[in-house]
Amino acid sequence: MSEAPAPTALLDALAFDRDGLLPAVAQQHGSGEVLMVAWMNRAAVEATLRTGEAHYWSRSRGRLWRKGEESGQTQRVIELRLDCDGDTLLLLVEQTGVACHTGRRSCFFRVYREGRLETSAPVLVAPDDLYGSSGKF
Amino acid sequence: MSEAPAPTALLDALAFDRDGLLPAVAQQHGSGEVLMVAWMNRAAVEATLRTGEAHYWSRSRGRLWRKGEESGQTQRVIELRLDCDGDTLLLLVEQTGVACHTGRRSCFFRVYREGRLETSAPVLVAPDDLYGSSGKF
Repeated sequence: MSEAPAPTALLDALAFDRDGLLPAVAQQHGSGEVLMVAWMNRAAVEATLRTGEAHYWSRSRGRLWRKGEESGQTQRVIELRLDCDGDTLLLLVEQTGVACHTGRRSCFFRVYREGRLETSAPVLVAPDDLYGSSGKF
Repeated sequence: MSEAPAPTALLDALAFDRDGLLPAVAQQHGSGEVLMVAWMNRAAVEATLRTGEAHYWSRSRGRLWRKGEESGQTQRVIELRLDCDGDTLLLLVEQTGVACHTGRRSCFFRVYREGRLETSAPVLVAPDDLYGSSGKF
């Protein structure tokens, strides 16, 4: 992903919601695994394009956030796609390590089956090793 | 997907937003292709589980909507997954025909590349053949 032109064509095509956000799906390039869904505002889109690393807007912390800034589990963006309505982004990424703060590869590790939620994926990295003992993120 | 138990375990784990909605990613089972992102409320989740066919909440039309109810391009749900925060669903589906109202397989047919939005997928079915000449959906 080149850093070059100002992303006017993209930003003009995006339909942010009333909070100035839209959902972004991060999918592992090649395997097709859906890793996570997070939120982007205009600044997150711009930072992502400028750096080639996925940035999101944290609704809980109220700030821009570079994926992996604390954990080291970064996402290099290979391709950025936009849906027909312009209100969702799809990022094809190269995920370093695990995407989920629980230490699992994908955030979608809970499967609903026969009335129960089952955990379908193992913890690959202990959360304390990702974030220290100071907090969740 | 069985119709059996009331989906209490799932509904209790879901974190709907202040409008009672959450985003749902529909992914083609097997290929991993991300087809679309739409919104679900509690009733859409319940209808999806009850019927095995994806239902969404249309924000533009303000009503529950069975995917393909007009176009015939339905989604049979193979598996339903929940993310770590419970605020996003991932549906693994068997998509009949095309997912996008433009007649393309996926809604994510626009790629941002070198400052421009490029169309990366062909129209497989003319929208008029999907919906008649009466409207977009």
